[in-house]
Amino acid sequence: MIKVVGFDADDTLWRSQDYFDDAQARFEQILAQYIDLQQTSVQQHLLDVERRNVRVFGYGVKGMMLSMIESAIELSQQRISGRDIHAIVELGKEVLQHPVELLSDVVEAVDRVARDFEVVLITKGDLFHQEAKVRASGLADRFGRIEIVSEKDQPTYRRVLDELQVQPAEFLMVGNSLKSDIEPVLQLGGWGVHVPYHSTWILETIDALPEGLTSRYRKAQGATQIPQMIEELLLASRA
Amino acid sequence: MIKVVGFDADDTLWRSQDYFDDAQARFEQILAQYIDLQQTSVQQHLLDVERRNVRVFGYGVKGMMLSMIESAIELSQQRISGRDIHAIVELGKEVLQHPVELLSDVVEAVDRVARDFEVVLITKGDLFHQEAKVRASGLADRFGRIEIVSEKDQPTYRRVLDELQVQPAEFLMVGNSLKSDIEPVLQLGGWGVHVPYHSTWILETIDALPEGLTSRYRKAQGATQIPQMIEELLLASRA
Repeated sequence: MIKVVGFDADDTLWRSQDYFDDAQARFEQILAQYIDLQQTSVQQHLLDVERRNVRVFGYGVKGMMLSMIESAIELSQQRISGRDIHAIVELGKEVLQHPVELLSDVVEAVDRVARDFEVVLITKGDLFHQEAKVRASGLADRFGRIEIVSEKDQPTYRRVLDELQVQPAEFLMVGNSLKSDIEPVLQLGGWGVHVPYHSTWILETIDALPEGLTSRYRKAQGATQIPQMIEELLLASRA
Repeated sequence: MIKVVGFDADDTLWRSQDYFDDAQARFEQILAQYIDLQQTSVQQHLLDVERRNVRVFGYGVKGMMLSMIESAIELSQQRISGRDIHAIVELGKEVLQHPVELLSDVVEAVDRVARDFEVVLITKGDLFHQEAKVRASGLADRFGRIEIVSEKDQPTYRRVLDELQVQPAEFLMVGNSLKSDIEPVLQLGGWGVHVPYHSTWILETIDALPEGLTSRYRKAQGATQIPQMIEELLLASRA
């Protein structure tokens, strides 16, 4: 019996990765003044730096900015100018201040789900930025609880479910990331509805869900399909 | 009747500002290669940049690092080298990874208070860094609840008290910052024990508490005095 439905926020309720992708394209253009983009993959280097730094910085835009600065210094062999470092800081600030753009049909989907289930928001990343986005989204009042967490892994979901006083089998998570929204919840014994987004940060991807778990989740093509997929899983949970 | 006691963390349970002060001294040394420290106050400039940026970055080390980089670029008139920017990133990473050093007698004080009251931890700043420090402190199990918040103002305390299902008059906060730990709680109708730390970030200071509130708080000289000060306020709350 599913009782509580959790919604992810970035790229599930509102656009996010697009801003990161755009910032990265502009970062590459800055680096083009120092290195041959045909010879060196700026993307790959930045990703290596981010992978190394995420253990110290956590997720979010400020960590991305600092990793970009570090990557720029390394790739340019310390030749990057103060002016260009400043341009990197500015493009990060723009990502931090972009308006919140809700994805199509999410308001209706959340309202539809909220008729039958308790709905909560569970989002990962920088506390300050996530709070600002939740406020700007206008959706805060729709959720019985808003959890901003630093990592979306099994221990985190277990803690949140304990606080909600709900068993994993009574919980379903809706989100765009198989790695963060679906896999850990299924592993705990919960349910999932995956709503893919057209762009996913490579550190958020996994190859595939473990076999044996796939009957506990559905893939929705867009927000309008979310209620129906939950309904299907609810029937399965009662079977 | 006081029922719940909240403890601040940075500079109340463990050292924090010292690391920031140290990083700032090293930042100044880096800038000394570019500007005349007699003529320009690096501290003042950094503070101006931080004050401007805190609305975009929030509190914490990553924001400090980015403000330092911005300040260095401005103060050096863009002449700062990639090598020196990298040194700033590295000194920030050191602050993020410093070991957690508990202040004297705090474990005993928390345990003493926990005999008579429900104790919770309420700390402000970067989610990822604060969680890492809570883990490293070994104190997590002593607190019934751990709240990491982005700002410590009246609305935040009201939300936390609602979640704790406790009235302001039943809540006492212990902390080193009059601005963040004491003033907003007193304004709501709660109680406070101020434990000054030898160094306070200027953006955390206030001139004085409003008159009329001062009977609801005590100043403790060190952690050993915390239980006694709470006892005094408890008697006052019953009077």
